[in-house]
Amino acid sequence: MAKSRYEYVKKFEQESILLPETYIVVRVDGRGFHKLSERYEFEKPNDSRALEVMNSAALQLMKAMPDILLAYGDSDEYSFLLRKGCELFERREFKLVSTFASTITSYYQFYWSQIIPDKPLGVDRLPTFDARAVCYPNAELIKDYFRWRQVDCHINNLYNTTFWSLVKSGLTTQEAENKLLGTLSSDKQEILFKEFGINYNNEPEIYKKGTVFVREVDFEAETTDLSKRQAQRLQKKLTKSEIHKLHCDIIKDEFWETRPFWGILKA
Amino acid sequence: MAKSRYEYVKKFEQESILLPETYIVVRVDGRGFHKLSERYEFEKPNDSRALEVMNSAALQLMKAMPDILLAYGDSDEYSFLLRKGCELFERREFKLVSTFASTITSYYQFYWSQIIPDKPLGVDRLPTFDARAVCYPNAELIKDYFRWRQVDCHINNLYNTTFWSLVKSGLTTQEAENKLLGTLSSDKQEILFKEFGINYNNEPEIYKKGTVFVREVDFEAETTDLSKRQAQRLQKKLTKSEIHKLHCDIIKDEFWETRPFWGILKA
Amino acid sequence: MAKSRYEYVKKFEQESILLPETYIVVRVDGRGFHKLSERYEFEKPNDSRALEVMNSAALQLMKAMPDILLAYGDSDEYSFLLRKGCELFERREFKLVSTFASTITSYYQFYWSQIIPDKPLGVDRLPTFDARAVCYPNAELIKDYFRWRQVDCHINNLYNTTFWSLVKSGLTTQEAENKLLGTLSSDKQEILFKEFGINYNNEPEIYKKGTVFVREVDFEAETTDLSKRQAQRLQKKLTKSEIHKLHCDIIKDEFWETRPFWGILKA
Amino acid sequence: MAKSRYEYVKKFEQESILLPETYIVVRVDGRGFHKLSERYEFEKPNDSRALEVMNSAALQLMKAMPDILLAYGDSDEYSFLLRKGCELFERREFKLVSTFASTITSYYQFYWSQIIPDKPLGVDRLPTFDARAVCYPNAELIKDYFRWRQVDCHINNLYNTTFWSLVKSGLTTQEAENKLLGTLSSDKQEILFKEFGINYNNEPEIYKKGTVFVREVDFEAETTDLSKRQAQRLQKKLTKSEIHKLHCDIIKDEFWETRPFWGILKA
Repeated sequence: MAKSRYEYVKKFEQESILLPETYIVVRVDGRGFHKLSERYEFEKPNDSRALEVMNSAALQLMKAMPDILLAYGDSDEYSFLLRKGCELFERREFKLVSTFASTITSYYQFYWSQIIPDKPLGVDRLPTFDARAVCYPNAELIKDYFRWRQVDCHINNLYNTTFWSLVKSGLTTQEAENKLLGTLSSDKQEILFKEFGINYNNEPEIYKKGTVFVREVDFEAETTDLSKRQAQRLQKKLTKSEIHKLHCDIIKDEFWETRPFWGILKA
Repeated sequence: MAKSRYEYVKKFEQESILLPETYIVVRVDGRGFHKLSERYEFEKPNDSRALEVMNSAALQLMKAMPDILLAYGDSDEYSFLLRKGCELFERREFKLVSTFASTITSYYQFYWSQIIPDKPLGVDRLPTFDARAVCYPNAELIKDYFRWRQVDCHINNLYNTTFWSLVKSGLTTQEAENKLLGTLSSDKQEILFKEFGINYNNEPEIYKKGTVFVREVDFEAETTDLSKRQAQRLQKKLTKSEIHKLHCDIIKDEFWETRPFWGILKA
Repeated sequence: MAKSRYEYVKKFEQESILLPETYIVVRVDGRGFHKLSERYEFEKPNDSRALEVMNSAALQLMKAMPDILLAYGDSDEYSFLLRKGCELFERREFKLVSTFASTITSYYQFYWSQIIPDKPLGVDRLPTFDARAVCYPNAELIKDYFRWRQVDCHINNLYNTTFWSLVKSGLTTQEAENKLLGTLSSDKQEILFKEFGINYNNEPEIYKKGTVFVREVDFEAETTDLSKRQAQRLQKKLTKSEIHKLHCDIIKDEFWETRPFWGILKA
Repeated sequence: MAKSRYEYVKKFEQESILLPETYIVVRVDGRGFHKLSERYEFEKPNDSRALEVMNSAALQLMKAMPDILLAYGDSDEYSFLLRKGCELFERREFKLVSTFASTITSYYQFYWSQIIPDKPLGVDRLPTFDARAVCYPNAELIKDYFRWRQVDCHINNLYNTTFWSLVKSGLTTQEAENKLLGTLSSDKQEILFKEFGINYNNEPEIYKKGTVFVREVDFEAETTDLSKRQAQRLQKKLTKSEIHKLHCDIIKDEFWETRPFWGILKA
């Protein structure tokens, strides 16, 4: 098709290619979900339907992108682990980042209409997400990355559970905030138990641990040089693999080492 | 709030800041809209309702981001021009790119449900977009950038109009493609006129020229050093400015030089 | 020539292309010149021969790279301004940065042997430089960049002149440092005048203002689209242009607006 | 020290940090050494003194930077392997690249004056180098990187040995080039043997294999989290380690697996 003399403007496009043979983690994060949760009157500290929307969207995204081996999320964020041989969008950063942000947005809005039909989304506040991609050179770092997110989930959920218990008992949000200032985990657990009869350990695992989706695929260590046919076979295997949903501890090594895909990661 | 010992993984995040004092153009582009247009049986060559969805989404995005001075789009793509002093997300590339992709997606899906309620979107094919950000150092380049997109619109629309006329007249898509191979603009216009009695010049402007949204703001040349108060006043002025919708020629200098914001651009 | 199966490792090379149509400033900076000046017993506050070595090296580098319009330096640093249409090394950052660092190093060592033959360089401390490249989108920023460097030169030279006067008069370096802590420019000028009878205004211009090399070329505004022949003619013109050496104020607009090349810069 | 109002221009500096926990290879490459070898009448195909200059410069650079575990070079290029925990210049790309280019230049010029005093360098053609930095995520890639360079050395040396034998025997350079066009390794070896009685296998190892410098350090696997004291102890150990010079095969695994530092690499 004919080209124009203005096409030279394309040379200003700068391409960032993510380093080959590294694990890519893409993390999507809800934008302004604090206000969104007020606008749509989420239950506090956790709105089980909103969480189901988020989890459904993440699972659907993982199904759509077979290179994702693992996804972990809680609240309004999700992290997706791409295998190190992944060539999706030729590892172009803007493509990965914008496509993940767009895709999670489209699924979130879709599942909202299915799961929370009684609260239709208004154009004044639609759910949106940003996304970032980070490269990690080895499997140990990947473990620590996901541990970081799960510890964060725990810290936030314990805080929120205590905070909203205090607020529901009559404190203002400011008073509750002040009361929790400088408290340790053990202090919060004690407040929950003594003041509200809540044993935090008995709270639902989905809130305490977040949600893990694992692609249960077992293939041999990835090599740098897959033939075209091997690559196709691998894609097929990934696409067909089952995805399991878990709400378990991912901090202990046990989670990682019992995964079928661990052979790939540690290679 | 307490931090974990895994937090070191954050140091692997690499930040790309778009060069200050350059104009940023963010272009969003529908992913796989060819198949999407088949799945939802778009009218060919142009589906006026789908175009209305796209334009409504782009306008809403422009309203939400006051730093956008100009937007131009056709078919399933839109380009947004950010003023050169723009500090949105501190000019972090991943934030801009992922937020634009997510936001256009959310509005597109929303307006689809309003404008095309008879064709509900299915989870098997939701509309998604990618986005890229490009920096241009001066206003002349900006003009050429948008000229490039409008010439592209013209080329595509003339082709599609002729192609679909041929197909509707009984040719297979392959036959139509072959017939148009190597034809010039003038050839296509002649086919349209002689075979179908269509004078291309009389086709609707929205299809031939695409859609322009202009923020009609007139402020003095941007300086590098706005005081905090000046910056706030500017944001207010931008937010309040009317946005006009046009389907006009943006290739001639006239369009640019009669814009109130031209003073800013050329500064 | 035959290739090997290991060549795939090249795909890990990541290329950074400096944004087209921006002015590139490359600044080279002596590494550890404080210790170097002790090792080779530089005169304080300014060693005129060491400065001559630096200036000779910078001039030679400017002659070798016709795209340099302007160079400014003092002490052990130099900034080189490349015209915005410059395509040297296809604007690849690593090439520009490493070549400038290497070239200034080679000339510096060469001229040292010519100008300071009585102090041969030892392998234990050879002069080396780092280099960085920065893009600026317009000519106003270029003016401010060089103003920044000249103000810096002034601040450092005034400090050093006072500091070394104090040390030569018998203070320890620590005592001199303490005495100057928190002093303003005017305070330092007063110390110089009252204690040492030195009128700072009468100090040599080369120390107070640094050194400017200007390529006195006058061509029309650069356009984005030079034909191959125009590009060659331009290179020839640049190569043939005289380079003038100045020790003048580059903070006032006058310096810039009377330059033959100003037409290029402001375009 | 006082700052100026022009200092804002620093915000245009864009920093590129090399991905943590990856091996950095810095490769320096002589610029225009073809012409340089003519200007200073190098012996062909190999000038043993010029090679000694290059090797001395590389060794000196390796001594100056304890984070270098391995260096490999031939002709006018050298590759330096930095350990993956290396924090030199905080892994800032421009600093690494420009400092390596500058440092190798300074040593090369220095050793030239020592080793080739009968051919003083002229300002019209001083030796300069560019440098690039590449990150590799794991040790297998590192092996393949250095294999790539040694295979390249072999290919080039065999070609040059044959080419210059032909030229010395009376062919023009053009005739020699034509004769070698499309020949395999075995063809060149046959030409050498049949026409010149040269058994390529008996050529000096330094020409066939290039030069390897190995820091013979044996420490435990690097961990991400060295305490400050551990880090200092490591630096000390690296600095004190002997550096061995070899002209051996680095393609076979044996070279790598018998290295004391292999424990670090494979970790």
